[in-house]
Amino acid sequence: MTRRTAICGGLVITASDEIHADVLIEDTRIAALAVPGTHSWSADRTIDATGKYVIPGGVDAHTHMELPFGGTFASDTFETGTRAAAWGGTTTIVDFAVQSVGHTLREGLDAWHAKAEGNCAIDYAFHMIVSDVNQETLKEMDLLVEEGVTSFKQFMAYPGVFYSDDGQILRAMQRSADNGGLIMMHAENGIAIDVLVEQALARGETDPRYHGEVRKALLEAEATHRAIRLAQVAGAPLYVVHVSAMEAVAELARARDEGLHVFGETCPQYLFLSTDNLAEPGFEGAKYVCSTPLRPREHQAHLWKGLRTNDLQVVSTDHCPFCFTGQKELGRGDFSRIPNGLPGVENRMDLLHQAVVDGHISRRRWIEIACATPARMFGMYPKKGTIAPGADADVVLYDPHAEQVLSAETHHMNVDYSAYEGRRVTGRVETVLSRGELVIDRREYTGRAGHGAYIPRSTCQYLH
Amino acid sequence: MTRRTAICGGLVITASDEIHADVLIEDTRIAALAVPGTHSWSADRTIDATGKYVIPGGVDAHTHMELPFGGTFASDTFETGTRAAAWGGTTTIVDFAVQSVGHTLREGLDAWHAKAEGNCAIDYAFHMIVSDVNQETLKEMDLLVEEGVTSFKQFMAYPGVFYSDDGQILRAMQRSADNGGLIMMHAENGIAIDVLVEQALARGETDPRYHGEVRKALLEAEATHRAIRLAQVAGAPLYVVHVSAMEAVAELARARDEGLHVFGETCPQYLFLSTDNLAEPGFEGAKYVCSTPLRPREHQAHLWKGLRTNDLQVVSTDHCPFCFTGQKELGRGDFSRIPNGLPGVENRMDLLHQAVVDGHISRRRWIEIACATPARMFGMYPKKGTIAPGADADVVLYDPHAEQVLSAETHHMNVDYSAYEGRRVTGRVETVLSRGELVIDRREYTGRAGHGAYIPRSTCQYLH
Amino acid sequence: MTRRTAICGGLVITASDEIHADVLIEDTRIAALAVPGTHSWSADRTIDATGKYVIPGGVDAHTHMELPFGGTFASDTFETGTRAAAWGGTTTIVDFAVQSVGHTLREGLDAWHAKAEGNCAIDYAFHMIVSDVNQETLKEMDLLVEEGVTSFKQFMAYPGVFYSDDGQILRAMQRSADNGGLIMMHAENGIAIDVLVEQALARGETDPRYHGEVRKALLEAEATHRAIRLAQVAGAPLYVVHVSAMEAVAELARARDEGLHVFGETCPQYLFLSTDNLAEPGFEGAKYVCSTPLRPREHQAHLWKGLRTNDLQVVSTDHCPFCFTGQKELGRGDFSRIPNGLPGVENRMDLLHQAVVDGHISRRRWIEIACATPARMFGMYPKKGTIAPGADADVVLYDPHAEQVLSAETHHMNVDYSAYEGRRVTGRVETVLSRGELVIDRREYTGRAGHGAYIPRSTCQYLH
Amino acid sequence: MTRRTAICGGLVITASDEIHADVLIEDTRIAALAVPGTHSWSADRTIDATGKYVIPGGVDAHTHMELPFGGTFASDTFETGTRAAAWGGTTTIVDFAVQSVGHTLREGLDAWHAKAEGNCAIDYAFHMIVSDVNQETLKEMDLLVEEGVTSFKQFMAYPGVFYSDDGQILRAMQRSADNGGLIMMHAENGIAIDVLVEQALARGETDPRYHGEVRKALLEAEATHRAIRLAQVAGAPLYVVHVSAMEAVAELARARDEGLHVFGETCPQYLFLSTDNLAEPGFEGAKYVCSTPLRPREHQAHLWKGLRTNDLQVVSTDHCPFCFTGQKELGRGDFSRIPNGLPGVENRMDLLHQAVVDGHISRRRWIEIACATPARMFGMYPKKGTIAPGADADVVLYDPHAEQVLSAETHHMNVDYSAYEGRRVTGRVETVLSRGELVIDRREYTGRAGHGAYIPRSTCQYLH
Repeated sequence: MTRRTAICGGLVITASDEIHADVLIEDTRIAALAVPGTHSWSADRTIDATGKYVIPGGVDAHTHMELPFGGTFASDTFETGTRAAAWGGTTTIVDFAVQSVGHTLREGLDAWHAKAEGNCAIDYAFHMIVSDVNQETLKEMDLLVEEGVTSFKQFMAYPGVFYSDDGQILRAMQRSADNGGLIMMHAENGIAIDVLVEQALARGETDPRYHGEVRKALLEAEATHRAIRLAQVAGAPLYVVHVSAMEAVAELARARDEGLHVFGETCPQYLFLSTDNLAEPGFEGAKYVCSTPLRPREHQAHLWKGLRTNDLQVVSTDHCPFCFTGQKELGRGDFSRIPNGLPGVENRMDLLHQAVVDGHISRRRWIEIACATPARMFGMYPKKGTIAPGADADVVLYDPHAEQVLSAETHHMNVDYSAYEGRRVTGRVETVLSRGELVIDRREYTGRAGHGAYIPRSTCQYLH
Repeated sequence: MTRRTAICGGLVITASDEIHADVLIEDTRIAALAVPGTHSWSADRTIDATGKYVIPGGVDAHTHMELPFGGTFASDTFETGTRAAAWGGTTTIVDFAVQSVGHTLREGLDAWHAKAEGNCAIDYAFHMIVSDVNQETLKEMDLLVEEGVTSFKQFMAYPGVFYSDDGQILRAMQRSADNGGLIMMHAENGIAIDVLVEQALARGETDPRYHGEVRKALLEAEATHRAIRLAQVAGAPLYVVHVSAMEAVAELARARDEGLHVFGETCPQYLFLSTDNLAEPGFEGAKYVCSTPLRPREHQAHLWKGLRTNDLQVVSTDHCPFCFTGQKELGRGDFSRIPNGLPGVENRMDLLHQAVVDGHISRRRWIEIACATPARMFGMYPKKGTIAPGADADVVLYDPHAEQVLSAETHHMNVDYSAYEGRRVTGRVETVLSRGELVIDRREYTGRAGHGAYIPRSTCQYLH
Repeated sequence: MTRRTAICGGLVITASDEIHADVLIEDTRIAALAVPGTHSWSADRTIDATGKYVIPGGVDAHTHMELPFGGTFASDTFETGTRAAAWGGTTTIVDFAVQSVGHTLREGLDAWHAKAEGNCAIDYAFHMIVSDVNQETLKEMDLLVEEGVTSFKQFMAYPGVFYSDDGQILRAMQRSADNGGLIMMHAENGIAIDVLVEQALARGETDPRYHGEVRKALLEAEATHRAIRLAQVAGAPLYVVHVSAMEAVAELARARDEGLHVFGETCPQYLFLSTDNLAEPGFEGAKYVCSTPLRPREHQAHLWKGLRTNDLQVVSTDHCPFCFTGQKELGRGDFSRIPNGLPGVENRMDLLHQAVVDGHISRRRWIEIACATPARMFGMYPKKGTIAPGADADVVLYDPHAEQVLSAETHHMNVDYSAYEGRRVTGRVETVLSRGELVIDRREYTGRAGHGAYIPRSTCQYLH
Repeated sequence: MTRRTAICGGLVITASDEIHADVLIEDTRIAALAVPGTHSWSADRTIDATGKYVIPGGVDAHTHMELPFGGTFASDTFETGTRAAAWGGTTTIVDFAVQSVGHTLREGLDAWHAKAEGNCAIDYAFHMIVSDVNQETLKEMDLLVEEGVTSFKQFMAYPGVFYSDDGQILRAMQRSADNGGLIMMHAENGIAIDVLVEQALARGETDPRYHGEVRKALLEAEATHRAIRLAQVAGAPLYVVHVSAMEAVAELARARDEGLHVFGETCPQYLFLSTDNLAEPGFEGAKYVCSTPLRPREHQAHLWKGLRTNDLQVVSTDHCPFCFTGQKELGRGDFSRIPNGLPGVENRMDLLHQAVVDGHISRRRWIEIACATPARMFGMYPKKGTIAPGADADVVLYDPHAEQVLSAETHHMNVDYSAYEGRRVTGRVETVLSRGELVIDRREYTGRAGHGAYIPRSTCQYLH
């Protein structure tokens, strides 16, 4: 029997519209939108959204639950991580399955399915990290696209681990040009960076702040440009992850002015944090070690501009938490051993709403960069990322006036610090539905591990 | 008593969504969208949209009905012109009221109201052409913004007629920076062009094709750049009308990369026609005389690219028809006396759909550049430009498979030629509703002069 | 009978070479260069240049002796101004003859010949300021080119005085494209600036520093771009005078990247002074009022870069001195009445040598921008601007180690202040020869009014 | 006893001057320049230069005599190659000594000294190809700079042979930033190209023209950009060899606009030949196989523009001849086995003079790009590259009116074909002196193997 939920009285915000409308959910899908007062829905349950925003659940296209890195693992499991995501208004994550060198893509993907299945509070999908491009891998890419893993990440950084050389990148891009896949690139010149790391350590520069100094903005921009040209040679689209340097934004803008299918993602940490954090005294800076690294403050304005001009299209988190105690501490005395990554899956929607409050972006753009575009970029639209008849009923009631203070004391991520400790923001998630089920109900968690379903994806929806 | 119309079975396309949904109209507004089969609407009338697109009525933000120009008048009245617009799937036009030098804005606006009132088949609004910036005019601009005329056109061309010098432009821009108005610019260096016109005529170069040669692309680009810098000095946004030169697109792209609030419009004639048409034998080229002029073919690709990269945001028609016989003929022996303008208000939606068929743009982008963005740009969203609960029920059923041949034989514009004579296109308007009333019903005109209402507008919705 | 002077033991520096060579002068020309010790010249006079630089006399391509401006006259006559130039190591000036509106070019040129003839200590030539482009003027331009006045200045600033509109500029450029002349442009949007001036005064902003605020960098850049595009349409070269804004340098760089014949000049005041000077307390800022105005400090680095990348080719002075007492004071209470101009003809070579000391430019580049390029740009090479057999014997012995303090106490310009008062610089002119005659002999003036000869010029030597 | 030669009556052309002057040579050096008729030199020998240009001997900064490549050797020895160079008006070459992987720089340099010593008709110097950057090599670089080998070539192409990865490049650049050396870069993404080569061969695309297709312009531009950014990180200057793609020129222009010390060289083959030659029928295209490859014709205009705007500074030959018979033929059936390289050392001065005749460059620019700048770039100025007192007496008498037809029948290079077979050019070398000795005397070879001396070089003269 059909279960009907009505959300009434709110302001529905999508990437393109802001309308006062009631929303009717039947079972797992949105059935109708209607002008308040014009309908007579017989709902099993009516949620009062007066004074609230009614927005699509967030889509975080870049998370790393349980990622093995530097001899340890990201501290959020799919269970803890997706629960925290729900608390933060995100109802879909796309996590990265990892191929280890010497293993098949299939093995990596199976392993990630095993980690996630039955554990997630919200829906999830996978990208595939390709660490080892060879004839076998290239064939597997075709199969994965067919079964809904339509994006593949390569690294120009991390030689000896995830690194692909330009030939491997070119081959993977050529393949994706044929099979419809999308190459996602970690764009840093890791070969050059490793030289600078070695030299810094040899000079005794071991503190976390040197992490930011050796991973130079110019080397991010260089790799970004190189990836763009390789994609151009291959005739393939390109998605650059975690863009942090203004010089890299400039390369993306240039490519887009040329009409190339090049896309860019940034993350809240680059918009709200800076090398000032990396330079915090003691070993505190380690909390902010991630790659690409945080940049000097003046880069922030360029990232905001890029989001406004659509030279950057997506804000994801690159959520990859490591506890300060026991994990980040592995790098005391050698910044290169600090596990790379920050927690953030719970904070994204709030921080971006704060950007609305601060005037950086409009409300519609907030939804676009956090929900609609990631859904379209990775083939999940209009099922995910919007509020429209037929879409999955992933809906967030957002209180735009509530104030909160971000803190490890109150967050739900499984990590012992917050990158935004003490930051006061305006706006808060009140209620979250995932495919029609209440996951957060007026600031109480009502979800469950296993509710979240795996989402096979179609190909990038920006190429036609 | 409420009248209810249901449009069922179609594919609803908006700027951001493509969904299979039924649409419920109550009186003049859209009341609801719902997944087919999930509702039990009791409609007075049900329109079967199976196999059709259900799209927002087109918004043509640039028309000149009955414009006096060069001693004659544009041949479409508001009655004939808006009827033709409806035939072409356009349900809102924004026409240009004209201030004559020595007269107030109010006088001009009143005159245009008088021309339009009671005569329009579809809704209409006005921009104001400011020909004479002075202290009085500047004050009037504030009043006009308050009453819903929120955009003002100035000309860097046509010295002695509409021309404003850079000081007048700067003053108007400063005022609009304060009152929220938007300056629309005809960007051609008319002072320099007039020198070239005089020199060409002195050399005996009198044919229509010389119209294209003297109005050089570089002089459009120059004026575009100048307008951008004046707007930057004034702290005001800018909308450049009828962009035709690739060099001008480059200036817009540069400005937008800098993060400036600069917008660009192009027209179907620049996308589908070229200087080849201006050079047609006999005096045929006169049919294609408009300003900015048609450009060599290679410019077209740059305009399409600009539309894809969002360096151009709007496609309007600049509809300004003059009959070949008796009007265009005024310029035999002197191209500078050919009335400037082309008919097109009826062809825009079809030509842009053809661009979808040809792969230049996506379906959503078609709706965005032809409906949603012009509505937002000129303060009519979400009343106009989308299909959403609460929006005006301006709805077009579009048959994407029907074929038609464009021709003066069959078009409804009051002009004796078609700029696209004989061109075969795929796609055709079937049915048009304007605020819930059928104006075109399965290819029959059911509208009436006087149905169309004046739309006071809010300010540009892209500035926040 | 031939008179022979040998200059021995110095380091000869030209735009391209630095060689230890002796220089033999016969009468007015350089007869030979030779490796010291390899020749046995029988000279009437031998000048010991040991430890000194032997450089070509400076060519200052932009001076305004006795210029009428704002109801007064520049305070240096040709007599005092050229004497001061000689003290500063400059042996050629190109001054601007002025056409007044309503008068012919010929009348203006004759008047300037009358002012200069018999009064100059060093050689001089003329550019022609064209204030009134009409059919008669255009014909006169041809004649002037033939008789050696091969460059014409137009103003996009100063409406009602020197201002030309874009049509007049285009016509003059077309003419120069035919007759080989070179258009020199004062590139500021004077029409827009006058609006800002009026508004500033209306707000009570009357101090000198507002001169810098209303003459906005963007309006210099805009006019620079406009002049470039008009020149491109005309197929003519362009020389932009007194470039001060980094945004204008960017426009020049863009044009030169496109391969256009566009040249740029800057002046010492823009390289060494800034808006900080305009903001000096009391009415002191008036000393620094010139147009284009001084810019904020950060522009300086862009000007130096432009000189290094050859996007700027010439450093002239725009020498146009007005005494603080009685002249600059005309603008107390209204910055727009402060006569525009700074003294500098005596300081240029020293300030640019200081730039060598400071590492901004090389020694060869010093000679190139101050001597060789202005000579070539304005058709006087190799007669002027180099040290080579056959060249005029305009030679300066420069002591690179002497220190001096710039000051109105010690300078020789007829003006009651120095724009560089108290500035310590390294390097000093020791001895100056003009066509073989000693004008300055070991820091004593040995010249005379009337020695200086008029130099008819050929056309720009950079166009082939 | 001093031997004196006078060259009388010619037009002396240097990078900056064109003067009618007589030139006096004493032994190996230029002793004096003088206005004809003003001197009374007692010369042992007087050469009549009436109607001739008197120019500095050419400096070819890029030759590969006897280079081992692809299992064979470049067919010119130092003896045959330098003799041919002299015939073509070149009096200095800088050849590339090669470090083989596993060997020291010293071993490579010694080997090249052994090949050259006693065999050269003209002076020669060495760059060092660094194939294997390691701690030892880096130390050797310092020593080589001290002894006059001040430039080091690295390859981003040819993996497994000369290839350096980005880390090795960065280290070498850092070292050169310290020791004053200049990194010369073969900028092509060889890793990506090798993928395309493999794929082309697998598709059966084995003809010479595929050489041009796989070595894509974008991959030259990419590598050029990457080299620039690595140099920027290292704080080092950069010289990019044999630039052929317009996209690469654009990267150089961008870098130079940014004020970076980046320099670019192109070669006559890119200015005069194109992919049309590579596509010549039969196996004829093999004659034109070199890397970077020839490009489509439209690139030529961009290279000429780059030479005019000084975004390219040097034209060298990359002379590396392989006979068609027996050598180029190694690549029948597999373009990747065709030895890379063209003959040209004899043709450069003539082809560039033809560019003067054709209006691409001025006479002074001819001397600048072919003589003065390479001499300065590689630390040999003013000894080489100019005609000035104290300079080496490397002088060419050039007949600007003589016509000749380039052909393997008449050339003196040891190779069985000419890349310019049948091309008619205006201008011809008449007489060549090397350090005062006649090498070519009125079209007769009077030189001898062993006259040519090794030239230790100082560091790049463009960095201060």
